[in-house]
Amino acid sequence: MQNGQILEVTAGEGYLVELSPGLISDAPGLAGRLSALLGLTDPSVRAVIVTDSNVGPLYAGKVEAALEATRPGASAGVITIPAGEESKTPLELVRVLEAMASLRLTRKDAVIALGGGVVGDLAGLAAALYMRGIRCLQMPTSLLAMVDSSVGGKTAVDLEAGKNLMGVFSQPVGVLIDPEVLRTLPAREISCGWGEIIKYAGLDGDVLAAVRTELGPCRSGIAPLPSVGLIARSIDVKRRIVSEDEKESGARRLLNLGHTAGHAVETASRYALSHGASVAIGMHILTKALVKEGKLPRAMLEDLEELLRQAGLPSSIPPELLARADLDFSIDALLAVASHDKKSAGSGVNLVLPIAPGRAEVRKVSWEDFRAMLETGL
Amino acid sequence: MQNGQILEVTAGEGYLVELSPGLISDAPGLAGRLSALLGLTDPSVRAVIVTDSNVGPLYAGKVEAALEATRPGASAGVITIPAGEESKTPLELVRVLEAMASLRLTRKDAVIALGGGVVGDLAGLAAALYMRGIRCLQMPTSLLAMVDSSVGGKTAVDLEAGKNLMGVFSQPVGVLIDPEVLRTLPAREISCGWGEIIKYAGLDGDVLAAVRTELGPCRSGIAPLPSVGLIARSIDVKRRIVSEDEKESGARRLLNLGHTAGHAVETASRYALSHGASVAIGMHILTKALVKEGKLPRAMLEDLEELLRQAGLPSSIPPELLARADLDFSIDALLAVASHDKKSAGSGVNLVLPIAPGRAEVRKVSWEDFRAMLETGL
Repeated sequence: MQNGQILEVTAGEGYLVELSPGLISDAPGLAGRLSALLGLTDPSVRAVIVTDSNVGPLYAGKVEAALEATRPGASAGVITIPAGEESKTPLELVRVLEAMASLRLTRKDAVIALGGGVVGDLAGLAAALYMRGIRCLQMPTSLLAMVDSSVGGKTAVDLEAGKNLMGVFSQPVGVLIDPEVLRTLPAREISCGWGEIIKYAGLDGDVLAAVRTELGPCRSGIAPLPSVGLIARSIDVKRRIVSEDEKESGARRLLNLGHTAGHAVETASRYALSHGASVAIGMHILTKALVKEGKLPRAMLEDLEELLRQAGLPSSIPPELLARADLDFSIDALLAVASHDKKSAGSGVNLVLPIAPGRAEVRKVSWEDFRAMLETGL
Repeated sequence: MQNGQILEVTAGEGYLVELSPGLISDAPGLAGRLSALLGLTDPSVRAVIVTDSNVGPLYAGKVEAALEATRPGASAGVITIPAGEESKTPLELVRVLEAMASLRLTRKDAVIALGGGVVGDLAGLAAALYMRGIRCLQMPTSLLAMVDSSVGGKTAVDLEAGKNLMGVFSQPVGVLIDPEVLRTLPAREISCGWGEIIKYAGLDGDVLAAVRTELGPCRSGIAPLPSVGLIARSIDVKRRIVSEDEKESGARRLLNLGHTAGHAVETASRYALSHGASVAIGMHILTKALVKEGKLPRAMLEDLEELLRQAGLPSSIPPELLARADLDFSIDALLAVASHDKKSAGSGVNLVLPIAPGRAEVRKVSWEDFRAMLETGL
């Protein structure tokens, strides 16, 4: 077992991200942390656990037991949503809110978001909306949620028109991460998380070096578990950027590296592609286009392709998806999705472009130039 | 025509409330204000008007014309919801959000909430949620929305479990009020607005004096239109309190005078009672209970009853509603609703209690004591 790490995010009122292997199985330790973070010594404060049908059976009982260990009655119950991206809807959000109301939660109570990115985003939004906002503690259980969505206060559900179009910025009161739970995560989910870690590698030279070290020995195409140190380092990149620009008016846009083309591909695949795989394809599209335009050395593209292969991620849209008659990956279809993206801004789109290994910058690109990049890079 | 008034709210990033009779009919004046408030000189910025099926046909065309007068294309269109409290639902909210997406609004664009309280609350929430928040300008057209809901940044829709349970605090970029539009407002709506004005009279001696002056000559039971000065004075009470306590952790709770019992009665009536009438009944319940307990002089109750009568508002639940078999106004039913109220806090409820003419204070009251007050005051 490795030692825990604590990182401080200064967005919102400020909060801590704690990585501690074995955290969830350590009942007294977890109880102490929950009591301190949620103020459970106040006898009128309760917490409700929001989780999904995969994670709930594994861990909700342990978290609930830890709550009850702080004080009988400190748990208000468990709300379970069906596992999967299909649950990230306004309808499911309202179901959770009605369930919170039927548990008679008050403004002093809190939500514990226990699960992957969908649970974190949806439960975070439910907490932000219930009675105009109650507190939320994030307990991410997927690699993607640990390194990305649980930190930074972005909450959302999807609209018909596009991903994450309905949401708010609302910082959690804390993030508790037990990397041990990754041992039960399916390989696809591990790869998905690597997609975001490789994104951080595109923004930070130290992460890039660590990613090379950890993926280097991997020849199987089955991604290894990242070390606790690399998870912490990834979160640290996000922490630094979010602390500087909570509401994405500047530096935070960097975190969207690979996300504009990536979201378009993800939506066009109707979520047959994981988020991490989509971001991987998105980064590859941009890098390939910039290499072909002579703006980046070919070695950067080859390096990216090698890392993606080692992490079990695709570099481009898999042939079996391209062959499906019900999916449309045409440039026009992708542009139509991208124009709905939050990053679009009238006459063009704010793209994050790689400029060197471990470095990227935000540039506003016209729709014509973005089209040309998709044509060259896909 | 009376002169305009401008008040400054310092909540959020700070914004102005402008009252100006004839504002909406003065096309060039309105265009100039919209351009300045929404930054329409930037050619990539547009505004969408959200209104309802009553207000839209009267005023949306004028506002849209003013937008287009600033710059062709500055209007992104008009989204209309069905008039009435029944529209204040998550479902209607999501319809508005999807419509905003289909108009391809970006993060730079803005919402103009043109209508009464339902439109203001719902459109304000839609703006706060769309792409994690775009700007909202409030243009209230009902007396209730002018003196209350358009100022202060409370946005919400109702859940099945209760009123305003799903929402956020999100301050508008400005509030534009044209009191001339009140001339077309039905009498019931004018009375409804007086309910909130009389509430401010319970919090502020100057408003109380002005209310007495304006309602004094009224013997018909049909409420007169309040003067622009009284509307401004009412907003000023709210402005002062909200500027001090944006998120209702302290002083802002004062604004809930009459609202705990009022919301319960309103919900129990299934909205057959207007919000203002419900607040009137709520104030009367508390005042009557305190008078019966000997904590307030009887004159305060008689004074309140006189003002409510002059404003065309009920002091208690009307007999025709009490007689309806499908409605349950029992103490148990009212307490069940009140316990869901946002103002409830575990073991009791934060009640606003009148303590003298023009003065009230917040006190936490146990559920037992609140039950007793309902029994005495109803």
